Amino acid sequence: MAIELYWGSGSPFAWRALLALEWKRIPYTSKLISFSKGEHKAPGFTAMNPRGKVPVLKDGGVTLYETLAILNYLERKQPEPALFGRTPSEAAAIWREISECIYYFEQPAFEMIGPVFFGGVNEKADAMKAAAVTLHSELARIETILTTANWLVGGEPSAADIWWYPETMLVERAGANAAAQPLDLDLAAIAKRYPAIGRWQKRMETQPGYERTYPPHWKKAA
Amino acid sequence: MAIELYWGSGSPFAWRALLALEWKRIPYTSKLISFSKGEHKAPGFTAMNPRGKVPVLKDGGVTLYETLAILNYLERKQPEPALFGRTPSEAAAIWREISECIYYFEQPAFEMIGPVFFGGVNEKADAMKAAAVTLHSELARIETILTTANWLVGGEPSAADIWWYPETMLVERAGANAAAQPLDLDLAAIAKRYPAIGRWQKRMETQPGYERTYPPHWKKAA
Repeated sequence: MAIELYWGSGSPFAWRALLALEWKRIPYTSKLISFSKGEHKAPGFTAMNPRGKVPVLKDGGVTLYETLAILNYLERKQPEPALFGRTPSEAAAIWREISECIYYFEQPAFEMIGPVFFGGVNEKADAMKAAAVTLHSELARIETILTTANWLVGGEPSAADIWWYPETMLVERAGANAAAQPLDLDLAAIAKRYPAIGRWQKRMETQPGYERTYPPHWKKAA
Repeated sequence: MAIELYWGSGSPFAWRALLALEWKRIPYTSKLISFSKGEHKAPGFTAMNPRGKVPVLKDGGVTLYETLAILNYLERKQPEPALFGRTPSEAAAIWREISECIYYFEQPAFEMIGPVFFGGVNEKADAMKAAAVTLHSELARIETILTTANWLVGGEPSAADIWWYPETMLVERAGANAAAQPLDLDLAAIAKRYPAIGRWQKRMETQPGYERTYPPHWKKAA
């Protein structure tokens, strides 16, 4: 039985799971659910994930949620191509980048993105500006890495790239939203301000299967 | 050359790295640094970790920071005893628990703990109470698991226990602090309110090497 992946358009977590499946060329059935119809809160879905979040991966009798769990499951199930490195040092470097994204980028990203898409920009302007300062400092750090390297860790694509990429895309999309413009966050054109990140994003976008992972509702809006 | 671990008393992240070293019985040199003397912000330390945070692990020419990186490095370097499972499903279950701690417990824990130890309880009382509600809901979830199991995942100790344990201890310690009492958060005696968690904590504390991982300044204060 093929793997099923339940995902939602625009979720960076779901995007990561899709990229891992594509990069490993693991056959899967795409189960796109609709946030606007509340399908992630429907009983059939919360029976799979009580938190009502995407992605959820089903593999026969195994049902998994939490993206870190899904990525590690796929790596164990099909080790090649290796997304988490081959040596202890490579593994550590990849996990360091994932951890830095989780602990230093995702929270300020959420603080900036949330009000843009769900309202409250006026009330939360100060917090959003503070978050943007942190985001720029973290983007500058990965810009430095990518100035002399094609991928975040070592010479090869890895789970570090998979973890970071969707979050940079979402930040850029929120930064370009009309609601964010009055705040002057300078996050509307990450690829321009951080050219090495821009080239790396392009590199991500030429990997096989990329177009199947791109958020469908972003295409329609573009 | 032996591994060196730089850590600080009371950091749940450092505690996790210490537990992993002890459980794997990997010889290491303990390098306890002093937060109150600012040793984590001294140039010698920030040369190892620019973020000025513990733990940092040195293994010959390899210098690592971010706890997720350190744990994965140790697992690759010395696979036995396995902390991240033996099968894809075990690995996924362990990573799911770690992810749930990171994404649903650590942030509210920080919101509750920060003001207790660093001031601001009066100003932040509402946010702390809201955080405590989330903490209780997450504690109730792991209480349910531990009511019928000795360890968080499967029948064996794993990285899931290592990840959760120090955070529950820190929440309990903050909950028992005099500064938290006026808020009635009911986090002062987790072991009493959640007896299965209490038994699991005791189980953690009888693992070999545990006493070397216990925060030294907690002993003095007790």
